[in-house]
Amino acid sequence: MNTADLGLPVAVPSTALFTDQYELTMLQAALRSGTADRRSVFEVFTRRLPEGRRYGVVAGTGRVLDAVENFHFDETILGFLRERSILDGPTLDWLADFRFRGDIWGYPEGEVYFPGSPIMRVEGTFAEAVLLETVILSILNHDSAVAAAASRMSVAAGERPLMEMGARRTHELAAVAASRAAYVGGFHTTSDLAAGFRYNIPTVGTSAHAFTLLHDTERDAFTAQVQTLGSGTTLLVDTFDVTEAVRTAVEVAGPNLGAVRIDSGDLLLIAHRVRQQLDELGATKTRIVVTSDLDEYAIASLAAAPVDAYGVGTQLVTGSGHPTCSMVYKLVARADSDAPDAPLRPVAKKSMGAKTSAGGRKWAARRPDEHGVAEAEVVGTGPVPPELTDHQLQVPLVRGGTVVAREPLDAARDRHFAARGGLPLSATQLSRGEPVLPTEFV
Amino acid sequence: MNTADLGLPVAVPSTALFTDQYELTMLQAALRSGTADRRSVFEVFTRRLPEGRRYGVVAGTGRVLDAVENFHFDETILGFLRERSILDGPTLDWLADFRFRGDIWGYPEGEVYFPGSPIMRVEGTFAEAVLLETVILSILNHDSAVAAAASRMSVAAGERPLMEMGARRTHELAAVAASRAAYVGGFHTTSDLAAGFRYNIPTVGTSAHAFTLLHDTERDAFTAQVQTLGSGTTLLVDTFDVTEAVRTAVEVAGPNLGAVRIDSGDLLLIAHRVRQQLDELGATKTRIVVTSDLDEYAIASLAAAPVDAYGVGTQLVTGSGHPTCSMVYKLVARADSDAPDAPLRPVAKKSMGAKTSAGGRKWAARRPDEHGVAEAEVVGTGPVPPELTDHQLQVPLVRGGTVVAREPLDAARDRHFAARGGLPLSATQLSRGEPVLPTEFV
Repeated sequence: MNTADLGLPVAVPSTALFTDQYELTMLQAALRSGTADRRSVFEVFTRRLPEGRRYGVVAGTGRVLDAVENFHFDETILGFLRERSILDGPTLDWLADFRFRGDIWGYPEGEVYFPGSPIMRVEGTFAEAVLLETVILSILNHDSAVAAAASRMSVAAGERPLMEMGARRTHELAAVAASRAAYVGGFHTTSDLAAGFRYNIPTVGTSAHAFTLLHDTERDAFTAQVQTLGSGTTLLVDTFDVTEAVRTAVEVAGPNLGAVRIDSGDLLLIAHRVRQQLDELGATKTRIVVTSDLDEYAIASLAAAPVDAYGVGTQLVTGSGHPTCSMVYKLVARADSDAPDAPLRPVAKKSMGAKTSAGGRKWAARRPDEHGVAEAEVVGTGPVPPELTDHQLQVPLVRGGTVVAREPLDAARDRHFAARGGLPLSATQLSRGEPVLPTEFV
Repeated sequence: MNTADLGLPVAVPSTALFTDQYELTMLQAALRSGTADRRSVFEVFTRRLPEGRRYGVVAGTGRVLDAVENFHFDETILGFLRERSILDGPTLDWLADFRFRGDIWGYPEGEVYFPGSPIMRVEGTFAEAVLLETVILSILNHDSAVAAAASRMSVAAGERPLMEMGARRTHELAAVAASRAAYVGGFHTTSDLAAGFRYNIPTVGTSAHAFTLLHDTERDAFTAQVQTLGSGTTLLVDTFDVTEAVRTAVEVAGPNLGAVRIDSGDLLLIAHRVRQQLDELGATKTRIVVTSDLDEYAIASLAAAPVDAYGVGTQLVTGSGHPTCSMVYKLVARADSDAPDAPLRPVAKKSMGAKTSAGGRKWAARRPDEHGVAEAEVVGTGPVPPELTDHQLQVPLVRGGTVVAREPLDAARDRHFAARGGLPLSATQLSRGEPVLPTEFV
C-alpha cells in the first residue's frame, strides 16, 4: 500500500524529511563554499539530566539505525524541495545521490548516561553528517525520556510486572516508540497493539467501565467477559461498588478468576480490602491489578500493598515530568580541508552563555571502584588510559554507511538492567539528587 | 512504496492498530453476549484543564477524521491478531468487514474548550464506537496540548511572528502533528520539512553554530551563507563574540541583511545592544530573531525588547509543562436492546473516587453576555433552550461513516483566533487562574 493512503503524518516516503530546513540550506552553502567535504565529527550529548534525576537511559538507538538506513531523497521529496524553491539545482542533484556513508559510534541501547556522556558520535563529511541532526535528536530525545521514566518505575515496582497503557495520552506513533522505550527501561507488556505488531512486545488488556455500563447489570458484563475470555481474565471492579463487584466477580468466574483491576479511589486502602475479600472468598490466587495516574512515587507507595501488577499510562509516556531530554548534536571537530588525510581540529562555540561545550572527538569509559561498582564517567579527547581500555562505552553502530549493530530489543533491555545494576546503590533512590556518577573530563 | 520499508513505527498499514487490546476483547465479549449492536453514545471531554490554564484549544480534529476513515482491518492486521490468539474466529470475521458507519459530532478544530465540554461525540453501535477510543484520544490529547501552548505563546508574542522549531525535541512524527497543532494555535511557520510537506505549513530555517565552526573564520561562514542564500538570509551571531559577529554580518551582507539570530545569553540585554549596533551600521531594517528555550513567559518578557520574531522548540512541542490533556472517552448513553428504535438510557460510572461523570448525550453552547462576550459554557442533556440554539458548539463531523467536515488548516486557525477573541479579556492572562468560563450543567 501507499503510505499516503494512511491520511496521517506517516505520508512521508523516507526519513529524510524529518529534518529542519536549515540543515539543507547549510548543506547548500557548504557545497558552494567548498567546505562540504571537510571531514567532521558531530557528537550527541546532554549538558544536564532532568532536575533531580540520578541517571539517564539511552533508548532509541535501534530506531536511529533504521532511520539512517532509510534517509534518502526520492523524487517525491526532491519535487517538494524544488517546488518550494528551498534549494538550488546542484544541491538537489547532490541529494538525489545521497546515502550516509560515514561512521556512527555510540553508547549501546539500554546503557545509562550522565551529563557530558558522548552518547552518539557521527563521523563523515560535513555534508552527510549535518543532515542527520534532527532525526537523530528526535528519536533519542523522545525515546530516552520515556525509558528513563520506565526505569525509575521499574525500580519502584521491584519484581511486580509493569504494563504500559499510555497510548491514548500521546501521539499515536509516539505511543509505539514509547512502548518500545518502556520495554527497554524495564516494562513487561503493552496495551498498544501497534507496538505488539511492530516490536513484538507482549500485549495485554482488561476491560473498560464502558463494557460494564453497556450491560444491564454488572453480573451480565462479568459473565459475558468470562464466557468468552475464560476465568483467567481480568475483571474491572470499580464501576459501581467495589465490594459487591468483587463478590460478583468470584461468583461468576469462580475462585480461579485471573485478576481484578482497580482504576480509581485510594488504591492502597482498596487493595488491602479487596485482597482480604478475595482470600475470604477462596480466590487466593486472583491477582490485583491497579491503574489510575500512577507514577514511580505512587508505585513505590504501594510497595507494601497486596498489589500484583501496575498499569501505567500518562506519566510513563510523558517521561514523568520530563517529556524530552536535552540532548544536542554538536560539531566537535573538523578538518581544515577536504583532503582525505587532513587532520581533525577540535571546535566549539565560545560565546557567553551556558551553551559552550568541549571540542574534540571523545571517548568515554565508566571507571569501576575496587568492588566493581561504577565510580565515575570518564570522558576524554586524548589517548584512552590503559586502565580504562576494558571499560569503554562506545561501540560501532554504523561503518561506512552500513549498520553493524542490529540486535533484538531484549538485548537492550538486559543491558539496561546490567548497567543500572552496576551503579552505586543510590542510583535507584527516587528522591531528587545529583547524578549518581560524576563526569570527569580528561 | 511499502510502509514497512520505512523501518520505523510507521510500519502500520492502517490506523486500526492504534488501539488498546481491551477494545478488541470487549468487542469479542459483546458479540458473544449479544450487546454489541446496542446503540451507544461515547463522549470525549476533560474533567479539568491543566493547573492554572484559562482555556483549552481543540486540535487534531482533522487528523481524527483521517484516522476514522482509515480504520480498517486488512489481512496483515487480522493475521497478526490471529497469530497472537488475541481474538476468536467470529470476531476476526466481524473485523474483516468493519468500517465505522456511525456519526461523529464535535467542537470544530481551533475552538476553545473548558472542563466538561463535550469536545467530541461518537454515536453508533457499541461495537463500532468502542474501537475508536484510543486513536481518537491519542490524537486529541497530543494535538490539543500543543495547540494550547501555542495559543498562549501567540498571545504573548502579539503581532510578532512565531516559528515552530521543536522537531528535535519530540518523536519524529509527533513533531509533524505538533507543527500542525502549533499552526492552529497561532504559529506562523515551521522548521520541520515533513510538516511543510504534509500540511503545507510555510517552512523556514537559519543556520547552526556548526556551520560557523566548519569554516576557518566566521567571516568565511557568513560569506558562504550570503553568497548562496542572498542578503535576506538570517545569520547566527552568537558562536563567538556577538558584537564582532554583527559587525562582520553587516560588512558581508550589507545593510539589507535580512536578520540576525541570537540563540544564547541574556536575550533582552543582547537584543537591545544588537539593535543599537545594527541601527548604527545602517542596517535599520535587519530583523532580530531570538531562540533559546523560549516559553510563553520568556516571550512575554521580551515584549519591550527590539525583537522581531521568536523561534520556539522544546516548550512548544511538550505543551509548556503539560504534554498531554486529560481527555477521556466515556460511554454516556446506550440502548437496552439492539432494536433500532430502542431508546437511549444515560449511563455513568458511580464508584467512589474522582472519576465519576454525568451520563446522557450532551449538547453544548457558549452563552454570550449583552456585549457579545462569552460568559458561560452551558452543557445539557435535555432540549436546547431557545436562547442558546444559535450558540451551539458541536457540528457534524461524520455522518453514517462519511466525513462531512473537511476543511483547510487555515480555517481552524482562523476559528481559533475568533473563539479566543470572543472570551473575556482575562482569558489571555498568562498567570495561573481558574478557567475563564464556568461550565454550567443544565
